[in-house]
Amino acid sequence: MSLEVFLNAIQTEIANTKYGESPVELYEPIEYLMSLGGKKMRPLLAVMATNIFSDNWQKAVKPALGVEVFHNFTLMHDDIMDAAPLRRGKPTVHEKWNENIAILSGDVMLVCAYELMTAVDDKIFKHVIRRFNRTAAEVCEGQQWDMNFATRNDVTEDEYINMIRLKTSVLLGFSLELGGLIAEAGDEATQLLYDFGTNIGIGFQLKDDILDVYGDPEKFGKQVGGDIIENKKTWLLLKALELSAGKKEEAELQFWINAKEFDKEEKVKAVRAIYDSLNIKHLAENKMNTYFNQGLEDLVKLNAPSDKKQPLIELTKQLIERES
Amino acid sequence: MSLEVFLNAIQTEIANTKYGESPVELYEPIEYLMSLGGKKMRPLLAVMATNIFSDNWQKAVKPALGVEVFHNFTLMHDDIMDAAPLRRGKPTVHEKWNENIAILSGDVMLVCAYELMTAVDDKIFKHVIRRFNRTAAEVCEGQQWDMNFATRNDVTEDEYINMIRLKTSVLLGFSLELGGLIAEAGDEATQLLYDFGTNIGIGFQLKDDILDVYGDPEKFGKQVGGDIIENKKTWLLLKALELSAGKKEEAELQFWINAKEFDKEEKVKAVRAIYDSLNIKHLAENKMNTYFNQGLEDLVKLNAPSDKKQPLIELTKQLIERES
Repeated sequence: MSLEVFLNAIQTEIANTKYGESPVELYEPIEYLMSLGGKKMRPLLAVMATNIFSDNWQKAVKPALGVEVFHNFTLMHDDIMDAAPLRRGKPTVHEKWNENIAILSGDVMLVCAYELMTAVDDKIFKHVIRRFNRTAAEVCEGQQWDMNFATRNDVTEDEYINMIRLKTSVLLGFSLELGGLIAEAGDEATQLLYDFGTNIGIGFQLKDDILDVYGDPEKFGKQVGGDIIENKKTWLLLKALELSAGKKEEAELQFWINAKEFDKEEKVKAVRAIYDSLNIKHLAENKMNTYFNQGLEDLVKLNAPSDKKQPLIELTKQLIERES
Repeated sequence: MSLEVFLNAIQTEIANTKYGESPVELYEPIEYLMSLGGKKMRPLLAVMATNIFSDNWQKAVKPALGVEVFHNFTLMHDDIMDAAPLRRGKPTVHEKWNENIAILSGDVMLVCAYELMTAVDDKIFKHVIRRFNRTAAEVCEGQQWDMNFATRNDVTEDEYINMIRLKTSVLLGFSLELGGLIAEAGDEATQLLYDFGTNIGIGFQLKDDILDVYGDPEKFGKQVGGDIIENKKTWLLLKALELSAGKKEEAELQFWINAKEFDKEEKVKAVRAIYDSLNIKHLAENKMNTYFNQGLEDLVKLNAPSDKKQPLIELTKQLIERES
């Protein structure tokens, strides 16, 4: 089974899902955000995990969509908190409608995610909800740590990795775990699927950090250097702060971090040059590869036919090599 | 069993519940809001409903708390949307912390409500979650209608009753339904419990509207006349607009509604005088009593010993006669 078959099934489910009728202010933003595209990585992972252990991967599609709806709920609320004007190149919900609608429509969206989860069999339902609850709380915890880091100057590399684990990777892990639970893959396999997901999730976020600085502007889809302009505490900046200590780069990096008025292009160019002299790109790629490789090792340990695991390996390679 | 015994069990459960550890910004607001008091009406209704059909009412306490946590989640987010500075006489979460924390802490709170629901037996769990999902979506729909009504001039009485049914009363209905489901009371009894709850819920909100205009300032706990000052479209204002049409009161009511600068006390006094001349208080009390009586009739139909139903009758009487 190829990635495209799974993706088509997910897209069809999205097209056929009604979240509610009225008032329209509550439900239109949900359909809007769900229609903006994105990789659909989370539902894909869930469905692919089910397919490893069951021929009936179709029964994972609806709960998998629940994870995607949850993910988009977090985007709707995060975009308010970050005052983000754009999401996937289009106006965010709080910009297109208003902040109150983005809060309330997001709330309903979270409820819709729980409703989609009811599509799993009764016998696994409570376990699925408990794991979903834990994961959902962790994602919120990650977002709060991320906001806390913005005003702190002593964030460590470990704290950063833990933040992206919570904010991003546990949901990828849960997607795969959900797929395993639906296929009744057993505890060991389900744990390996979860571990695979959290490892590639951290790799995925580190790739994001790298692309934001070193992406090809033609292919990246967002403004390259956005994180540098905002002094966003990415792995690259934290590592540069650590490695520049006591070196000539230290003062220059602090100058750009503290600059109130600056030419954006100039700052991006200057900070990128500091990163280059400290070998940050290479170090970040090493770190990223460590997590992706750990994930691929989890897959090797997974007791299942190679051809069944192939789509997950293929997707992981796409994530490593992606340019946007 | 008296009301106090149930209330004590609920208060003890609240005192013993940990919602999460860190980051503290996420979990302190939950404990803060849950500690501010309130009538605990929803968990009380759930536990009392279980007690009618089961000696083990204690097993309803944890899921009943889930409804209370959900209710407080809606308060946390509604207070942002309404820009409310105070809740139960204390600073709202977005005032005491900030808006982002109130959004995200509220999100986690909704997840905590779902987690508390997992305390019900496996065999009813999926049904409980489906009903909880439907109810939660309706509560959000009610809040959106309420916000929409603020900028509309053509709100009908039926629309208003439907709005308060969604925003307030379906959650009271669900609380009782939940209690019935936990006690395995059967479909007919569970439906009657739900109907009782939605009827007294509408009565409860109409009482709120009446108290806001006619409450005793010494006992009410909030500013009497707040709704009048804000032109809030309560049942009383909608009925006054309807009944004043073509009469001398029409122009005076419109004058006060359209007044940009006014003395608050003077406006409250003047609008209350218009209400009096249109007999609005009496009409509102009639309407309110219709719903409370309908609820009490539902209870009569409920096939259970009178002494078991007594606490619900007692609570209903307290709600009818309450002064705050």
